[in-house]
Amino acid sequence: MTIPTMRSAAEVAARLDQDHEVIVETLKELLRIPSVSALSQHRGDVDRCAAWLAEHMRAIGLEQVAVMPTEGNPVVYGDWLHAPGAPTALVYGHYDVQPVDPLDEWERPPFEPVVRDGSIFARGAVDDKGQLFMHLKVVEAYLRDGGSLPMNLKFLLEGEEEIGSEHLDHFIADHVPLLQADVAVISDTSMFAKGVPSITYGLRGITYLQVDVRGSAVDLHSGTFGGAVANPIQVLCEMLVALKDGDDRVTVPGFYDRVRALRDDERKAWSSLPFDEGLFRTQAALPANRPLRGEAGFSTLERVWARPTLEINGIWGGFQGEGAKTVIAAEAHAKLSCRLVPDQDPGGVAALVRDHLLRTAPPTVDVEVTVIHSGRPSLTPIEHPAIQSGLRALERGFPGQHATFIRSGGSIPVVATFQDVLGVPTVLLGVGLDEEHAHAPNERFHLENFAGGMRSVAHLWEDLARTL
Amino acid sequence: MTIPTMRSAAEVAARLDQDHEVIVETLKELLRIPSVSALSQHRGDVDRCAAWLAEHMRAIGLEQVAVMPTEGNPVVYGDWLHAPGAPTALVYGHYDVQPVDPLDEWERPPFEPVVRDGSIFARGAVDDKGQLFMHLKVVEAYLRDGGSLPMNLKFLLEGEEEIGSEHLDHFIADHVPLLQADVAVISDTSMFAKGVPSITYGLRGITYLQVDVRGSAVDLHSGTFGGAVANPIQVLCEMLVALKDGDDRVTVPGFYDRVRALRDDERKAWSSLPFDEGLFRTQAALPANRPLRGEAGFSTLERVWARPTLEINGIWGGFQGEGAKTVIAAEAHAKLSCRLVPDQDPGGVAALVRDHLLRTAPPTVDVEVTVIHSGRPSLTPIEHPAIQSGLRALERGFPGQHATFIRSGGSIPVVATFQDVLGVPTVLLGVGLDEEHAHAPNERFHLENFAGGMRSVAHLWEDLARTL
Repeated sequence: MTIPTMRSAAEVAARLDQDHEVIVETLKELLRIPSVSALSQHRGDVDRCAAWLAEHMRAIGLEQVAVMPTEGNPVVYGDWLHAPGAPTALVYGHYDVQPVDPLDEWERPPFEPVVRDGSIFARGAVDDKGQLFMHLKVVEAYLRDGGSLPMNLKFLLEGEEEIGSEHLDHFIADHVPLLQADVAVISDTSMFAKGVPSITYGLRGITYLQVDVRGSAVDLHSGTFGGAVANPIQVLCEMLVALKDGDDRVTVPGFYDRVRALRDDERKAWSSLPFDEGLFRTQAALPANRPLRGEAGFSTLERVWARPTLEINGIWGGFQGEGAKTVIAAEAHAKLSCRLVPDQDPGGVAALVRDHLLRTAPPTVDVEVTVIHSGRPSLTPIEHPAIQSGLRALERGFPGQHATFIRSGGSIPVVATFQDVLGVPTVLLGVGLDEEHAHAPNERFHLENFAGGMRSVAHLWEDLARTL
Repeated sequence: MTIPTMRSAAEVAARLDQDHEVIVETLKELLRIPSVSALSQHRGDVDRCAAWLAEHMRAIGLEQVAVMPTEGNPVVYGDWLHAPGAPTALVYGHYDVQPVDPLDEWERPPFEPVVRDGSIFARGAVDDKGQLFMHLKVVEAYLRDGGSLPMNLKFLLEGEEEIGSEHLDHFIADHVPLLQADVAVISDTSMFAKGVPSITYGLRGITYLQVDVRGSAVDLHSGTFGGAVANPIQVLCEMLVALKDGDDRVTVPGFYDRVRALRDDERKAWSSLPFDEGLFRTQAALPANRPLRGEAGFSTLERVWARPTLEINGIWGGFQGEGAKTVIAAEAHAKLSCRLVPDQDPGGVAALVRDHLLRTAPPTVDVEVTVIHSGRPSLTPIEHPAIQSGLRALERGFPGQHATFIRSGGSIPVVATFQDVLGVPTVLLGVGLDEEHAHAPNERFHLENFAGGMRSVAHLWEDLARTL
């Protein structure tokens, strides 16, 4: 169907290109808000960010805009539903960002965005403020001066993605009629590489735990007690190392039980992708001669896209200052996370890891294991019409480039919720790059991809309206 | 020999008991100065502490008092040399203290001394300000109102003991005539237990290292890269765990080569000491049912007094905040130290550990190992007359208690220097308790032992003057 007064996607895309500089300046306003969800001292900034978005959404023509409370950070909702008979897409994004530590490794302050070398640098630039902003700017370009969109859109912007979206599932379950749609669209993933725009059809899940090991009630003098009492740091290291064997396989019993085996055709398709180990090393900021490391028997892409992991995300205990302090620490701590693949159940895996750690903890210490959050893996068949529509939109948005289907090692648990609760597939049209330091100092977003992403989204609505 | 106008040790001891409250109030002034040598921001406090001591030493009648510069923190010197024909003792102490972290575990601020339950609480209370202060107060009690000491005394108070006494050996070598004596005396050790005053005849040495492991130049997203690159925290844990075998023996080749075997008579003497594993657990602030842990084939006392160790004193890397951050850290770090026994050479052991770590480091990361400081172990035969004199002094200072000979797991490297450079044995007359939290939050010093220590030192000078 068509709406007679509508602009074409091509017209909208051209207008977006024309307005690029103004759009980047407005994005900077959003990036200046330090909406770090993991740290309670930023709670006010999170609320301020939600309010900024609501205000902006109203200004560009979205309706029913509301900052909706949850038991955690608020959800921002808005819609445009004036395409009767046309399908409806639910656009999801998150306005919260990762913490910025280690702060001293940032070349510029993380919340003072700056454009340099064709990228915009700031915490949240690509993950996910820059990418959700693409969607708002496309809406604005369609609706300006009395225009209309080729299909109905609903926006669901959350503020807890970086801390596990704890309250989002509940929110969605409570608002099924409000959120009902034919397809979900998310821009929070990466392209396979620069010049290879990509639709992501599979995501890993996650479960995140903290391990606390306690020995003495106090730090002990390592001369007086050294050699005669268990050292909690030593015990923690031993327990962590025992979680993997020499092939980097996780030793927790049952860990791999529900891992879906890679299909031969998938393996073959991936092996024909232009994967460049040198580029991967560059993306990972590794020296050129540094060997990679991972589970035996799998390629790098397979390890990241289709195999579960267990990584130590943080560790601390005892003296960490300059010089020397001869203590046996009272406590040692670690943060662990497992990336999970279909059909692993995050809650089940968390329990396996926790129970295994508790069962194998030596009697010389107290061990506590806390599950911090979990999120399910997801997989959408590439045959799905919406996914195919996404691929065509990318090829329109990035003229001259060949778009492809990929998986991602990252986690967007809401994709599983959209499938299970709303019954809709998700098109993951993300235009980040793996080397853009999401979650690390000096996060950035390549402005060419930002522009290409906006053009693609403009085409996506036109294509989906025809396809679904 | 005797000096006719001299007070007896018994008179001096009685006067010290009488003045106890005033003495404790003056000690508080010394404890209020945060002379933390490990942290450069306290450099001014270290200097202030040296100046306070020099001023106090002059006030009580010591002569030639001087704050003497080194390339690090200054040494405070002072003497009283008016007992011609009598022997000379060199009293060593240190006025620097350990860092106070974790600060939130202190029940009261570490530099606001307070007396409670018969102890004085503050950083440095027992290690070593309180114990060196005993010596100053004994001098004061002997010299007041024109009195004199039974022998000659020289004071050498340093400000870098807690950071490895880096410049002390050089200072001593440069000032041999100034420091020449017949015996050295140090009060910086513990009694075997409350009610068992002790002379320590053996000390462990130490070498302290830092290990730095570096992977990527930046923290990486654990979804994008997890499972496909080496995780520096994982590698560090693996390297640390591999340093010991299942019997808690250090696996570094050559580590035990120069360890002097325990003599049968020593082993027998130690096994007859009133060692109470329950008390040891209490001293170590361990729950009652917690098993101890140490090298297979040795008792707890043997592990602490006569066996070398390798302990992880601190570890850090990646995310350590509240909640979750899904990073693969760029770097991971650890502080390690080995307590060493005769005849191990600290520099040699440090090189063995460093070389072993570098040799076994995987090619997936960069590993750097830095030796932070080292100090030699020492052993004085218990047959030595000065040591015997020390035992008698303790029995006079702690009437009704049976004094004993012990070793210590701690390290006072200057003891080896006194032997090698000045050719003098050291009497280690320390009156701390292992449960007094030296190096930990809520450090304290039992005031009964403080008083008994002062009485013992008063008797020591009289006894040594007769004995040597």
